[in-house]
Amino acid sequence: MPIMNRHLVGFRCIRCDARYPVADYPEGCPRCLAEAFPASVVPVYDESLPPLRLDGPRNGMRRFADRLPYGDYDSLGEGDTPLVALPRLAGELGLESLHLKLESANPTGSHKDRMSAQFVARAKDRGAPAVIAASSGNAGTSLAAYAGLAGMPCTIVTTRAISPPWRRALVMSGAEIIYAEDSLERWVIVRRKVREEGYASATNYLDPPVGSDAFGVEGYKTLGYELAEDEEAAAADVVVVPTARGDLIWGIYHGWSEAIAAQRVATMPRLVAAEPFPRLQDVMQGADLRGHFPGQTSLVSIAGATVTYQAFEAVRRSGGTAVAVTQGAAEADQLALARAGLYLELSSVAPLTALRRLMDQPGSTIRRAVLIATSHGYKEPAS
Amino acid sequence: MPIMNRHLVGFRCIRCDARYPVADYPEGCPRCLAEAFPASVVPVYDESLPPLRLDGPRNGMRRFADRLPYGDYDSLGEGDTPLVALPRLAGELGLESLHLKLESANPTGSHKDRMSAQFVARAKDRGAPAVIAASSGNAGTSLAAYAGLAGMPCTIVTTRAISPPWRRALVMSGAEIIYAEDSLERWVIVRRKVREEGYASATNYLDPPVGSDAFGVEGYKTLGYELAEDEEAAAADVVVVPTARGDLIWGIYHGWSEAIAAQRVATMPRLVAAEPFPRLQDVMQGADLRGHFPGQTSLVSIAGATVTYQAFEAVRRSGGTAVAVTQGAAEADQLALARAGLYLELSSVAPLTALRRLMDQPGSTIRRAVLIATSHGYKEPAS
Repeated sequence: MPIMNRHLVGFRCIRCDARYPVADYPEGCPRCLAEAFPASVVPVYDESLPPLRLDGPRNGMRRFADRLPYGDYDSLGEGDTPLVALPRLAGELGLESLHLKLESANPTGSHKDRMSAQFVARAKDRGAPAVIAASSGNAGTSLAAYAGLAGMPCTIVTTRAISPPWRRALVMSGAEIIYAEDSLERWVIVRRKVREEGYASATNYLDPPVGSDAFGVEGYKTLGYELAEDEEAAAADVVVVPTARGDLIWGIYHGWSEAIAAQRVATMPRLVAAEPFPRLQDVMQGADLRGHFPGQTSLVSIAGATVTYQAFEAVRRSGGTAVAVTQGAAEADQLALARAGLYLELSSVAPLTALRRLMDQPGSTIRRAVLIATSHGYKEPAS
Repeated sequence: MPIMNRHLVGFRCIRCDARYPVADYPEGCPRCLAEAFPASVVPVYDESLPPLRLDGPRNGMRRFADRLPYGDYDSLGEGDTPLVALPRLAGELGLESLHLKLESANPTGSHKDRMSAQFVARAKDRGAPAVIAASSGNAGTSLAAYAGLAGMPCTIVTTRAISPPWRRALVMSGAEIIYAEDSLERWVIVRRKVREEGYASATNYLDPPVGSDAFGVEGYKTLGYELAEDEEAAAADVVVVPTARGDLIWGIYHGWSEAIAAQRVATMPRLVAAEPFPRLQDVMQGADLRGHFPGQTSLVSIAGATVTYQAFEAVRRSGGTAVAVTQGAAEADQLALARAGLYLELSSVAPLTALRRLMDQPGSTIRRAVLIATSHGYKEPAS
């Protein structure tokens, strides 16, 4: 059975700073929710939490066990993914250096494994009858895998539009699959399972949405650690992240902040959210982040009409920005990266496309960049 | 430009022990070939080769640079894949421990990346006009990726039967794709390209076949190193490997032998070749290994009617064996592993199926086992 970190003493709202005892907050901060402004909570550890140790032996995110909610958890070897240098592409773009963090090298082929590992440990520890997620892609397949590893029942709520490769992975995982009428109805089904049956949800089910489960999102800190400890990545002017509800970009912000607090790095790069149509980009220019920003896209892993407070804060606090990319430009970059040796899911190349847009702006001072590639190309249909 | 290891002084035949100068031997040992018995050659290093250093910081197979033909090469971060503990499955099987080496976590999703990285470095260094492979799967997609990374032209000779996910990866890589009439005609086309146009072939084109290019196969040593340095894996009674022409099982044997020579481990586990129909299994019982052993199978990555001398030797020298598994039993194990969190290509679960067969034999003394999982499930069609 997973054992909770004994230094974990509660949770804190990232918006109003309210403190809460250790428990589960699938709907985020109760006070902010009462104000109709969903906001994430983050774990709070006591003063005797061991200091952040970077540069240790790389055996996956378990090496950061003493700073995670569950240091002892069922692992498939997630974390410590390659950081690939792309000198030729850097030259073409006029950059001094360009690196790509290959999160597709995680056990189920995406960054989601960092979240699923911690989330399932929590669900198992508190005796939830099952885990559940609204997902038509990487979150669902990753959750199903970690639930299988841990021996927990899993339900994935998806739609008929799920791509066949992901559907096959889900079917074989043994997860229960529920087909909702559309993307937003998934959230209704998940909400009912959480409120009426006590299921533990790995993903949001509110509208306007909140970040995913706080135990799970904490796993993404480790990606921030891994970047901050790498000399090349730590010198980046920008880190560009495929972003929808912003669990990942928040996690990177959070982990990097801890590396600064530990005096391991002096500054944070600007965190840039790459998105498939203007959404957070509009919010950065003043739109209410609780609104709907509809758009159609084939970048399915970062689709959806909503943004979250955590995504906004990660970008704002790091001095970053949000960049919407067109599907056509992303498709061209998917080919460009495949020809350079990196066969990635369309959503995972959006950071390169966004970087090109930033560098085309007059007065761009970007010299060193890191792209986060969340998933590989085999997830897409290949008729 | 890649720089060859200055300690590399020649090649040696693994069958007749003949020595050869540093050059390319795509058809293996010339003397054995003249005797109509194709046999692999392996690199020979001088006495001042640095000792094998295990337990170093894990940053992929580059950490073994000083013992590879090309220490300085274009890398996507291959190597140092997770070793996953499967305690529940071990319990079901009556084992003390069961581990799975997750080679699908390599950059292109398979073990082939260890080979491609070294092979492309050699081809680039010697100025080959292009690299080529006969492949309808992981070898081709991996080679295309590393060629793209290195900026080298690449040709893949396949058949119309290639699965759509692999075909899409190839098409997007920009590699030239040639469709042969059948599997054996691929070898004819590759042979012509090598002999008439100087292409560097990553795969065999002889019948009876020889192991793949010796520079490339040397990359697989690192998988042997990684197992030997892990306390759990090093204690295994058996390491079970999906096997066709045996590049991988030979590489594991070779790397583990060096760990023994370095006094890092005392003994080698029995290396077991898992195959989709009796082939090496027949050879172990006396059949001429140069014969044809036809069979139909959906385990496409370890299909084909032939075996190699290197596969035979890796099994024989380690005191191992070869086990043919039925397609139905492998399909059941593909589901069993997917339900335990590991969604793998059908060929990659054959080691579990083979292990079950071994354990069912009267008097089995197997207590600790390692399975090599070469590739993930997204490579297969998902209509």
